[in-house]
This record gives sequence, structure tokens and C-alpha cells, in this order.
Amino acid sequence: MALIVQKYGGSSVADATSIKRVAKRVAEAKRAGHDVVVVVSAMGDTTDELIDLAQQVTPLPPQREMDILLTAGERISMSLLAMAIHNLGVEAKSFTGQQAGVITDEAYGKARIIDVTPSRIRQTLAQGSVAIVAGFQGVNPTTNDVTTLGRGGSDTTAVALAASLMADVCEIYTDVDGVFTADPRIVPNARKLDRVSYDEMLELAASGAKVLVLRCVEYARRYGVPIHVRSSFTTHTGTLVTDQPAAEGEIVEQPIIAGVAHDRSEAKITVVGVPDVPGKAARIFQVVAGAGVNIDMIVQNVSVAATGLTDISFTLPATDGAAGTAALTEHQPDIGFASLQYDDTIGKLSLIGAGMKSHPGVSAKLFAALADAGINIEMISTSEIRISVVTRADSLDEAVRAVHTAFELDSTEDEAVVYGGTGR
Amino acid sequence: MALIVQKYGGSSVADATSIKRVAKRVAEAKRAGHDVVVVVSAMGDTTDELIDLAQQVTPLPPQREMDILLTAGERISMSLLAMAIHNLGVEAKSFTGQQAGVITDEAYGKARIIDVTPSRIRQTLAQGSVAIVAGFQGVNPTTNDVTTLGRGGSDTTAVALAASLMADVCEIYTDVDGVFTADPRIVPNARKLDRVSYDEMLELAASGAKVLVLRCVEYARRYGVPIHVRSSFTTHTGTLVTDQPAAEGEIVEQPIIAGVAHDRSEAKITVVGVPDVPGKAARIFQVVAGAGVNIDMIVQNVSVAATGLTDISFTLPATDGAAGTAALTEHQPDIGFASLQYDDTIGKLSLIGAGMKSHPGVSAKLFAALADAGINIEMISTSEIRISVVTRADSLDEAVRAVHTAFELDSTEDEAVVYGGTGR
Repeated sequence: MALIVQKYGGSSVADATSIKRVAKRVAEAKRAGHDVVVVVSAMGDTTDELIDLAQQVTPLPPQREMDILLTAGERISMSLLAMAIHNLGVEAKSFTGQQAGVITDEAYGKARIIDVTPSRIRQTLAQGSVAIVAGFQGVNPTTNDVTTLGRGGSDTTAVALAASLMADVCEIYTDVDGVFTADPRIVPNARKLDRVSYDEMLELAASGAKVLVLRCVEYARRYGVPIHVRSSFTTHTGTLVTDQPAAEGEIVEQPIIAGVAHDRSEAKITVVGVPDVPGKAARIFQVVAGAGVNIDMIVQNVSVAATGLTDISFTLPATDGAAGTAALTEHQPDIGFASLQYDDTIGKLSLIGAGMKSHPGVSAKLFAALADAGINIEMISTSEIRISVVTRADSLDEAVRAVHTAFELDSTEDEAVVYGGTGR
Repeated sequence: MALIVQKYGGSSVADATSIKRVAKRVAEAKRAGHDVVVVVSAMGDTTDELIDLAQQVTPLPPQREMDILLTAGERISMSLLAMAIHNLGVEAKSFTGQQAGVITDEAYGKARIIDVTPSRIRQTLAQGSVAIVAGFQGVNPTTNDVTTLGRGGSDTTAVALAASLMADVCEIYTDVDGVFTADPRIVPNARKLDRVSYDEMLELAASGAKVLVLRCVEYARRYGVPIHVRSSFTTHTGTLVTDQPAAEGEIVEQPIIAGVAHDRSEAKITVVGVPDVPGKAARIFQVVAGAGVNIDMIVQNVSVAATGLTDISFTLPATDGAAGTAALTEHQPDIGFASLQYDDTIGKLSLIGAGMKSHPGVSAKLFAALADAGINIEMISTSEIRISVVTRADSLDEAVRAVHTAFELDSTEDEAVVYGGTGR
């Protein structure tokens, strides 16, 4: 008998029929003798509909009220799911984030979990009942007001509860079969990974893979919570995210690659004609950071000796493009650059696998694959287990396919896969 | 400067446009210098839609989960209203029933308020902000679970908050102009009452007038909370419900009648051939009460001496008809009656006015009016300030019009009125 935390996203509980299917799955786990805690997102498009209602009322809703509004969504899905499970003859009780003891800071709309005190959940399990918990929400203990956790918040709720309850596994149910070596919409013969390490999953998430959000994986790694990413539409085994890398135990000739991620959401700013003196680059990134913008990759061109000027390029989320440009323009006099170039037609490809740095052949093979496909590399960055390159946005799909093939990730089976975003 | 509690029903906050109109009204009261607490129902048909969703999931939803589900409705309307008020430059914060300190018993689905501890509401008012409170809901302190108050619950929330905050007035906004001498859909020239006493309003509510529910009026009378029933679509003065009767101060020749109520929701059970010995009637009503059925009017026919048998008729809500009939049938052997007759085609007309008992001419005039209109009276019951008669359901409208005219309640003005049910 195990303690299992299951999380179902919005597409898994989109209507009464889906809720009944999830209920059956939960009841089966319970009848198999496990203690079951279920975290649910809001049904289907509920959250978008509530946001739309708010925008009809005011262009700038106060964030406290927005959080109260949005948490109505999980209130609906969690109570309906509890009813559906009850209807199958299995006891189930639903709890809000507050009732489940999900304590957060007071950053409405993007709160971080600071503690989990699930005494009511433990009590409910001890009574032999399934506990349903609203994802995406917590309580700010200073004001006793409800908060929401931002994108991917329900996954984070599930992992945080699993950590606090010392669950055996946290199952994240989604509309895909697991974590893939690449996005199957771009690479039709991408393979599902049987397992992937926290570090690899972090890099995949940070590099554009949408199946799990970064903070959820960070939380799981910190507390050693095993995550099982799987489909709510099949009973197939999905992908296990633990501290074991994807390739461990596989035959040695295979490249030690977990997968190829891609990201189309970034833009590039080039600061042209920066005086090549110490402190200027630091000043640029201070200014950008001061505008609340996160920088991803950075390239500084070699200085042209005759002019004493250099160009610095960096990537940032395209949604922060206006803020970054405005901040730099405001500080143009003191930084002393000549001009700014803004480019939002870039794409980023990342190759991820444990121990990549110790295999120098990996980057050579990557660059060769892209060169053979006639794709130009504009920027490069690497970490212990990742190589990322920036290309033109319109060559990104081709680049992903070329790299996926070069590293022999293509599946030989004819797997039917469904791929999409996860809920929140 | 006054402390005003305003309550808006579902039809007053049915969509974004309506919410903005209510926000304007609230902001005006605040700008006029008043402290304002607003109680809201769920938007339009939200509650019915949620009930429908639950029924798609299970035929018998557990009541605890049903209450969690339904309270999502006010969560949405209260936060949207707070946003809309905020958008007009007036500070507003929304609170759930629990946050507002509405403490109830644990009767899910029909909980009763046992205490109100509105410290957060007082604090919010002291900060110069409008407080929005979710109607229809509270918290059961034993389990810390949310409860709902049943039909008319938002009105009760408003009156209970007004009592606890010692508000100057509790304004109940609805889609009618106030309390009328009869339902204007049946009597087109019904008059709006400028005022009505708690006792009269209680009799009106108990006799089928839908503008306020019984328990809300009971609460207001117990704590002396003045209620102002008015339209959210106009700025007209509505009807003031206090301890002053409707007719006080009016010219003495006028009948002291508050209005004519009608009710089509009852049915009649006749227990035929009951042994006319002491205790049999009591046994019948014990059995019916034991089935959780409330009895309204009772008539016992004169015993026929030769047989020693009598018939007993009583009225009950038609929705309880099956339960009442089943309970009596089960106890037929020990009660010893011959048969049961069930009739759900009855209508009840009630004439209400303070001091009616001291004016014997009133009942004579009522019976004469009905006789002149050719309407047969099947049962009669009276209280200090009410006379009720049961007629055939299909003569009820005509009966209401005849009595309304006989007591000179018809308006001489050509008032434009809108009449409908209230929210919950």
C-alpha cells in the first residue's frame, strides 16, 4: 500500500464525462489499497472565462480580487470530482488550498508556497477517504486571504503536498503520454522517455518543454519527490522524473541525450557600439534587471580595436521586450551605446542530457547536424547538461528534426502520441 | 453619515454590465459619505448551472460537496463587484461568508446562522473601504467547512450582518419596486406599499409573497433591523419594513389591509374515515411531522354520529406530497383510517393586515367578495393579522383580483411595475 498524490489538469476534468472518467481512475487506485490525494485544476477553459469576465468589468483588476475570482474554478472542479468519486461508492472529501494547509507568501497572482501543513488531509486519509485538493491556490496567513500560484501552480501544489505527506509518488496526469525526446508536433517520431533526471527535466522545462513547469521540478528535486508524468486518457506507463538520468543503464554506444527542446518565446536585443571598458556590460545588465526582466543568453562580440567599441547581444522573453528596450533607452546617456536592435524572430534549440560536458563529441555533432541542414547558429550557451543555440525562428522546426535524427533519438516504433500544453 | 448594508440579488448582477451598474450605485452611496457593506448573490443563473453540473456527475451529490460547489457562485460575483467598484476609484474588498464571520450550524444546504463576528468587515469599513460579502454562505466552526443557507440565504446574510454591525438600514435590491398589495402579474393595478410591519411581512412571506423569505424577516424583526426593499433598476423609494404597520396614519375609512398574497405551491391530503376518538388527529400529525413535512392548514369535518368516523384534511407543500402520503399509508393500520385523497390543484389566498381580528367586518367582506365572484371556499384559517382561504387552483387569480378590488387596494395611478422572483 502506497500513498499516491495524483494531479489532473484542466483538460482532464473539462466536463462531466471527463470528471467521471477521472473519478473511476481515482477509485481504482483507492480500491487497489492505496491512500490517494488528488489535486485538480479548474475545468477546461474556466480560468480563461473568469479572466475574460474580469476584463469586461475593469481593465486593471486588483490582484487580491483576481485571485479570489480565479480560485472559484478549482472550487467547482474539486467538489464535482468528490461527488463523482462518492457516486462510485468511495468516500471522498474536497478541500481548498487553505483547508489543505497550503501556506504561501502574499504575492497575489504568483504566490510561492512557504509551508504545507496538511493535517486535515492526513486526517481524511486516516478515515479511509480520498482527499481532493484544489490546485493553484493557497492562503496568505498574514491576511487570511486566498492567493494563486501562477502558471503551472497545480503541478506545484501536487508536488508540495507529496513532499509534505512523504508520498511514494506524485502522478501528474496530462494530455500527453509523458516527457518526449522532442515535441511530437514537430518531430513526429519523437520517443517517450521512460525516465529523466530532475536536472534534465529542469533544463528541458527551462528550454521550452511545456509538460512540467520549472518551479514544480525544482520543488520535486529539493524534496526528492518522484514524479510520474502520464496520460489521463490511457493506462500506459509515462515518464518517471527522479534523480536517475534518462540514459543510465542503456547500451553505451547510444548518446547520453534526454531530448531536444525548443522555445519560440524569446527575443534578442543587440546593444550596438558599447564602449569596451570595464563595467559597461555589468551596467547594461543592471539596467535590464532593474526593469524586472530576466536575461537568458548573452553574446559579446570581439571588440574592434580601432574604435574601442563592441556589440552586446542578449535574449529575453519576448513579452519583456518593450520593458527591456525602454529601460536601456532611458539609460543610453550614462551607458553610452550607439543604438539598439530588437529581433523577435529568433528560435532557441536546446539539447539536454546528463554528463554532456564530459563528451566533447556532443557539441561537434550538434553543430555538424545544423550545418548539414544549412541552418545558421546565431548564439550559443552551454551548461553542465545542456547546449542551447539560437537560430532564425523559421528554421527552428527543421533544426529540431535534424538534431533529433543526428542523435539517433528517432523512434523506430509507430507510437501514437498526443501532445499539447498542460493545464495550470 | 450612516452605515448601510445593501443586498443585490442574482438578477441585479447577471452580467458585466449589470455588475458595473451596481458598482456605480454602491460608489454613489460611499461618496455620499456612508459606510457601505454589500451582500451579493451569485450571477444570474450560475447556481442553477452548478446544480445542473452536479446532477450530470451524480444523482445524489453529498451535501457537503454541494455546498462547496454552490459557494463558487458568490465568489465570482463578489470579486467582480469589488473590481468594478475599484475601477470607479472607490476602495472595495470582497469577503467570503467565512471571512465575514458568518457562523452557522452544520446543516449543509439549509444552515442557520448562529453568530456573526464581522471583525474584518468593521476593519475594512474603518479603513474607508467598501466591504463586499458573499451572500448565502457561512462556515460551520466545528469542521471549518463552508455551508449554504438555502433559499433566500443572501437576504438573511444581509439582515444578519446589518444586525451585527448595528446598521441604520438593510437595503434589499431586487427586480421589483418594493412590496405590493398583490402580485402585479395577477392584479395589474396592485399598489406598492410605502411601509409594512415585520408581522405583516411575515404573514405575506408565509402566504406566498416571494419578495422576501420568511427567515430573513424573522431575523430582522428579532433584531429590529429596518429593511428597505427597492429596485436595483430605478432610484424610487421602495417599501420600508419596520415595526410600523402599513396603514398607520392613513385615513381611517380605508381598510387596514397590507395586501393579498397567493400561493399555488400547496397540496391537500384528506384522511377519510378516521375513528373520532381522542388522540387520532394527534397521531396523524405526529406521523406526518415524523416524515419531515410541515403542515399548513387543517380542517376536521363534523363527526357523523352514526358511524363514529370523521374526515381530516390538511395542506402541505406539494413537494412534500409523496413523503406525507407514504408516511400515512405506512401507519394506516395503527391510525385506522379508511383511505387517503390527494389533491394538488388547490390555491391559497391570504389577506393580511394589522389588527384584522379587531375588525370583524373584514372576514365578512372577504367571503362576500369571493361569493360574488362565484368562488367556492374549501378551507379557512386565520391568525391575528391574516385570513387565508383555499380555493380551486384555477379560480385563484380571479379570487385575488376580486378581493384586491373589494378592499379598495387597487391603484388609481398608472404605475409601471416590474415583478418577478428575487434571487436567493
